[in-house]
Amino acid sequence: MKDELMKMLEEREDEMIEIRRYLHEHPELSFKEEKTAAYIADFYKGKDVEIETNVGNGHGIIVTINGGLRGKSVGLRADFDALPIHEEADVPFKSANEGVMHACGHDAHTAYLLILADCLIQLKDQIKGTIKIVHQHAEEQPPGGAKSIVDSGKLDDLEAIFGIHVLPMAPAGTVGYHSGYSFNGRTYFKLRIQGLGGHGSSPDKANDAIVAGAHFVTAVQTVVSRRVDPMNAGVVTIGSFDGKGSFNVIKDSIEIEGDIRYSNEETQNVIDKEFHRIVKGVEELFGVTCELTYTPDYPPLYNDPELTAFVAEVLNNLKDKSIKEVKEFPKMAPSDDFAYYLEKIPGSYFYIGCTPKGVDEPYFNHHPKFDIDEDAILVAAKSVGHVACSYLGME
Amino acid sequence: MKDELMKMLEEREDEMIEIRRYLHEHPELSFKEEKTAAYIADFYKGKDVEIETNVGNGHGIIVTINGGLRGKSVGLRADFDALPIHEEADVPFKSANEGVMHACGHDAHTAYLLILADCLIQLKDQIKGTIKIVHQHAEEQPPGGAKSIVDSGKLDDLEAIFGIHVLPMAPAGTVGYHSGYSFNGRTYFKLRIQGLGGHGSSPDKANDAIVAGAHFVTAVQTVVSRRVDPMNAGVVTIGSFDGKGSFNVIKDSIEIEGDIRYSNEETQNVIDKEFHRIVKGVEELFGVTCELTYTPDYPPLYNDPELTAFVAEVLNNLKDKSIKEVKEFPKMAPSDDFAYYLEKIPGSYFYIGCTPKGVDEPYFNHHPKFDIDEDAILVAAKSVGHVACSYLGME
Amino acid sequence: MKDELMKMLEEREDEMIEIRRYLHEHPELSFKEEKTAAYIADFYKGKDVEIETNVGNGHGIIVTINGGLRGKSVGLRADFDALPIHEEADVPFKSANEGVMHACGHDAHTAYLLILADCLIQLKDQIKGTIKIVHQHAEEQPPGGAKSIVDSGKLDDLEAIFGIHVLPMAPAGTVGYHSGYSFNGRTYFKLRIQGLGGHGSSPDKANDAIVAGAHFVTAVQTVVSRRVDPMNAGVVTIGSFDGKGSFNVIKDSIEIEGDIRYSNEETQNVIDKEFHRIVKGVEELFGVTCELTYTPDYPPLYNDPELTAFVAEVLNNLKDKSIKEVKEFPKMAPSDDFAYYLEKIPGSYFYIGCTPKGVDEPYFNHHPKFDIDEDAILVAAKSVGHVACSYLGME
Amino acid sequence: MKDELMKMLEEREDEMIEIRRYLHEHPELSFKEEKTAAYIADFYKGKDVEIETNVGNGHGIIVTINGGLRGKSVGLRADFDALPIHEEADVPFKSANEGVMHACGHDAHTAYLLILADCLIQLKDQIKGTIKIVHQHAEEQPPGGAKSIVDSGKLDDLEAIFGIHVLPMAPAGTVGYHSGYSFNGRTYFKLRIQGLGGHGSSPDKANDAIVAGAHFVTAVQTVVSRRVDPMNAGVVTIGSFDGKGSFNVIKDSIEIEGDIRYSNEETQNVIDKEFHRIVKGVEELFGVTCELTYTPDYPPLYNDPELTAFVAEVLNNLKDKSIKEVKEFPKMAPSDDFAYYLEKIPGSYFYIGCTPKGVDEPYFNHHPKFDIDEDAILVAAKSVGHVACSYLGME
Repeated sequence: MKDELMKMLEEREDEMIEIRRYLHEHPELSFKEEKTAAYIADFYKGKDVEIETNVGNGHGIIVTINGGLRGKSVGLRADFDALPIHEEADVPFKSANEGVMHACGHDAHTAYLLILADCLIQLKDQIKGTIKIVHQHAEEQPPGGAKSIVDSGKLDDLEAIFGIHVLPMAPAGTVGYHSGYSFNGRTYFKLRIQGLGGHGSSPDKANDAIVAGAHFVTAVQTVVSRRVDPMNAGVVTIGSFDGKGSFNVIKDSIEIEGDIRYSNEETQNVIDKEFHRIVKGVEELFGVTCELTYTPDYPPLYNDPELTAFVAEVLNNLKDKSIKEVKEFPKMAPSDDFAYYLEKIPGSYFYIGCTPKGVDEPYFNHHPKFDIDEDAILVAAKSVGHVACSYLGME
Repeated sequence: MKDELMKMLEEREDEMIEIRRYLHEHPELSFKEEKTAAYIADFYKGKDVEIETNVGNGHGIIVTINGGLRGKSVGLRADFDALPIHEEADVPFKSANEGVMHACGHDAHTAYLLILADCLIQLKDQIKGTIKIVHQHAEEQPPGGAKSIVDSGKLDDLEAIFGIHVLPMAPAGTVGYHSGYSFNGRTYFKLRIQGLGGHGSSPDKANDAIVAGAHFVTAVQTVVSRRVDPMNAGVVTIGSFDGKGSFNVIKDSIEIEGDIRYSNEETQNVIDKEFHRIVKGVEELFGVTCELTYTPDYPPLYNDPELTAFVAEVLNNLKDKSIKEVKEFPKMAPSDDFAYYLEKIPGSYFYIGCTPKGVDEPYFNHHPKFDIDEDAILVAAKSVGHVACSYLGME
Repeated sequence: MKDELMKMLEEREDEMIEIRRYLHEHPELSFKEEKTAAYIADFYKGKDVEIETNVGNGHGIIVTINGGLRGKSVGLRADFDALPIHEEADVPFKSANEGVMHACGHDAHTAYLLILADCLIQLKDQIKGTIKIVHQHAEEQPPGGAKSIVDSGKLDDLEAIFGIHVLPMAPAGTVGYHSGYSFNGRTYFKLRIQGLGGHGSSPDKANDAIVAGAHFVTAVQTVVSRRVDPMNAGVVTIGSFDGKGSFNVIKDSIEIEGDIRYSNEETQNVIDKEFHRIVKGVEELFGVTCELTYTPDYPPLYNDPELTAFVAEVLNNLKDKSIKEVKEFPKMAPSDDFAYYLEKIPGSYFYIGCTPKGVDEPYFNHHPKFDIDEDAILVAAKSVGHVACSYLGME
Repeated sequence: MKDELMKMLEEREDEMIEIRRYLHEHPELSFKEEKTAAYIADFYKGKDVEIETNVGNGHGIIVTINGGLRGKSVGLRADFDALPIHEEADVPFKSANEGVMHACGHDAHTAYLLILADCLIQLKDQIKGTIKIVHQHAEEQPPGGAKSIVDSGKLDDLEAIFGIHVLPMAPAGTVGYHSGYSFNGRTYFKLRIQGLGGHGSSPDKANDAIVAGAHFVTAVQTVVSRRVDPMNAGVVTIGSFDGKGSFNVIKDSIEIEGDIRYSNEETQNVIDKEFHRIVKGVEELFGVTCELTYTPDYPPLYNDPELTAFVAEVLNNLKDKSIKEVKEFPKMAPSDDFAYYLEKIPGSYFYIGCTPKGVDEPYFNHHPKFDIDEDAILVAAKSVGHVACSYLGME
């Protein structure tokens, strides 16, 4: 069946590109992807599948392909939201929605998966088991769409889940994989330190919030330098220290905002505990009051080692001219809410190289000039197609 | 002659109050006191004195009373600018100049000195030596008016200078004095720390200006805690730490502003040196670039011990019903540009109690509800009159 | 009576010097002054006075001279212990007690007071009221002797107390005074920070006590820089940071010792409170355990302003060739347990200049080469004699 | 030939154990391994090989086995020094050299390699190329023996080098490998900060070295927290902060010692640069003088990915009852001077499981109770034998 599927995908490559360009020109922000969701739902209209819309906390769509033969069940996910970025890429299908841009490649993700799904629907009778196509909204904006889809229970029957992300760190034709923890988890925090204002010449009558804040910043460095296992990755960034005031007035309060990253749950737990401890410590140290908002966004993404080895093996043993190289990629610093699926369902999230042709130093995801080699779309479709078929036992 | 002068002053008390109220209703900001200066100049019109206007860097006025007899020369100074404060005091002569207020008592200073000067002009023939009346602009706003008046050379011939400040920490009738260093000096600074911005998840690709700034704040505490002689007073206040940014972006630069106070020149010099050292140290420590604006405002004010003892003795030995108590006052934390006169000319700056009658906890200078007991104006006129006459040897 | 007393003192100057030299050669450490106390007690043997020995927590001696006439009661105190210093001064009466030295002038204090007391005993009949001679042990070693003598209740009837200290910052013939807070108070502390040891390569498995200690040191700077009124004097010195260990082993605990100084009770209270707060804050901040020993030694010494003015006036109005100058001295940084008497009894502790003749830069008290001009002993005797007589109303 | 070799090794297992026990009973410290070296040299006496002794900066021994056939050249290294540890393991062949112990398994390393070498010598004629047996002294004590052996040039002709380390984290029968950076590099540092001593009550007259040291400790945390790529491992441990002194004396100088770890050269370079910068920064910040000893010990150990894959493949494809499992091991935090060979010669350093039988939580290397399952010795001999033969093309 795989050969037939691959041939169908090859034939519909132009269509994938067309869809990608259409989506690229009409990007929508996370949780506001009404038209994109309608476009996707419309694509499946009249096809012999179950389709559920408005899944989870937004415009999520699940398409269930019940195979003609008995077997396992597998999920395939692509995200479809865009970013609040003003596009600077010079392409004919440039964003028509000023200030919004598909700068992360979700247009390509959706394009390949729609055509792959359509082909699988046509080959339904040969499918052993069930394939759930997950078109996910709102990946870019915590709390994201994934968690709510998982929480809906609609994927509870899945035995495995796969997804891909396009990355310009390798050319089209390269597929990357990474076993175990692969994307960092992330937490947002805001800390308000309340002291007591006063005149600059009389510090003893006040309680200087800037001094307390500075000691917080120096003390919190020790979380990463002394508390996180050096073999793990942890980052505590204070991106904002808002203590603007008048030069001769002691600030009564300041507000700090920041970003925490961790490569695995153990590190997340250590940072959580130590960060809270330090906030309490600063309260005690300076007699100030701290108000903390501490919001974990996405957890670290853990690729199941067995299924990742399976992906690598399947793709390595192909004779497919589109897939030229399959290799290990390093860990990724960013976060992705695909992690939520992987907390519940074993699976693997892998990478599709997409460096634009002729470009040595490509712009990365989230850059206003981000662009892809559209050859990567077919690579994505074929790779995921191979993996899904092999997983369900259809060679 | 003193008796005659005192009698004249008593008779003109109402006039002093009237002038004070007029000035109070028509306050003008530092360096913008055109109408006030014109009012003062107009007051002296037709009187037998030399009058110089636009002295120094603004609307300063010097009135020279050449006595009929030979003798020493002495200066008497009163300042006449107001503050950018919205008046909240409930008085019939409330500021008519919205957002500007005589909240420091310079209206009373000017009122007493005009009448005292007029009386002295009338008694000219009996005066031994010369009296220079200095109506000074712009005390509230560094660089102030005093330094420019001193630099004009027009006071070079003075052998002594006196001035007073009304203070509500004692009732009308009390005169205070303090020998040696009496008001703190002050320096303004602004420090820009330039690092390198970057993504919150990759601190190694950036150079975090907030972390450098926090270490600056903690290190600069040691100037006061370890470098200033504990017997002296020094303050380094960081009033503003402007590092507002996005939570997940490493700040490329921050801006710190602050206020430095010192009780004497030795302390000023120590703080100057150590502060600059720490700025350089932070540059080295974190590989950031620091841009420092460091502007000394007014120096510490040093009352000549002999002349201060002279003031105390003269006033203590009076039998004058207006002056009920003469006592030592503590050092004052604020700054006053009278300090510049005292750097060149020995003298003493002393205090006139002015707590409004029936008030237990008066509002202090610079408060929107600041008010005075107008009895203090006559006390000021008499005290300065006594001191000036005694200094010139006219009993 | 004063003239008679002064004459007697002049005649016995050699004897004072002799006593001083004897004591100098036979110094004894605080709380171990057995022979010195016996020497003093022996001096009074057979004289018509009450003598109490072993007063307080050591070898304190109180000699009560009941005057022939009715009147007030006054105390005169001299301390008699020495220091654990190896004498390097080149004098014929050098310490015979190796490693112990009268390097603070208590030998001179005791010498003058013995002779003054003896003269007063002889003039007893003319004395109005009571004079208590307090020979105090153990000034150099907290908790000191003074507090225990006060606590004994034996001085409860005193209406005033006086004492002097020799200081080489002025020549013999100069007497200094300072009103109000005059010597700093002092507190000793020891802080043990207990973390968790571990291998240098695995900080996450340990809890680094050195890092916690370093943050304690930086945070505690803010007590002086931000919490103490700049017009007051406060010092927090960490004299010892014992974190010696092996380079590649994370220290499990460190021990910090230090010294706190304060010019008045308000400052003492602020430092007490903030210091304890910071210790607790460090516990919270790093999850370490802190064990704190915090021992106030001597309080700030407060000279009663009225009695200090009285001392100044009495000595200023003398015609005595021995007392050449009477002037204000600055505040002293060290501590003296004379402060305890002054907490209960108004009084004044004043200074007797003693710069050795021909010396420009004298060695200060506690220096191994400390020495005095022995002329100062007679000055001390006369000054205290004058003050005591005047206080009791005997001219 | 491999089968023959394996059979020979199996037959001589008892002899390996005997040698290991002998060495265990007679441990010698790094650079002092005279008797051990003599024992080894003696072992080769009369055998048909070249033997070089006293190679490098100590007792290094190189034995060259020139094969009968032409081919490549490969090195096999085992270290033979012991540690300054008092043995607490309860074994009959306990250390007879009080305070010295083979607590790292070098006895086993040497035992297997002697017998393996002897067997290879016997099979010489069948060997394609050259095998250099490197018996290395002084691995435990930087600068170590490896660097000097490399610098001797005697291994310049090697095309590959292999070595093993026994580790009790897996049972005998398990062989571990890790590709790329596998052991951390290490640097030792000592920092003396020289300020200016003084009396605790007068910080302004001194320059407090403890305060400068504390700021160094807090600032140096930022090297790991902000400058090292979070995906790499870096550690800066301050193991010793020697600032012991008297509570009331300001310390003139302190001495800090510590340990730096890094997972790769990039991290080493970043830490080097930033550490030196911070030392200079502290000098500037506080006007102190810093004296820094900064001694890189062993570099990060980099296993050639191709040769490591080769080792894994060779051992995975065996049918050898002694080698039960071959798997990836994690990175190791410690350092090993095998890294120096790998800087010059591609190779792989791999791991031989040795958990004592029946033990769940074995004591690790360097523990006074460290012990091994002696079955691991044969595993080591066979694994290295297989790898060497395969590398030279002898199946």
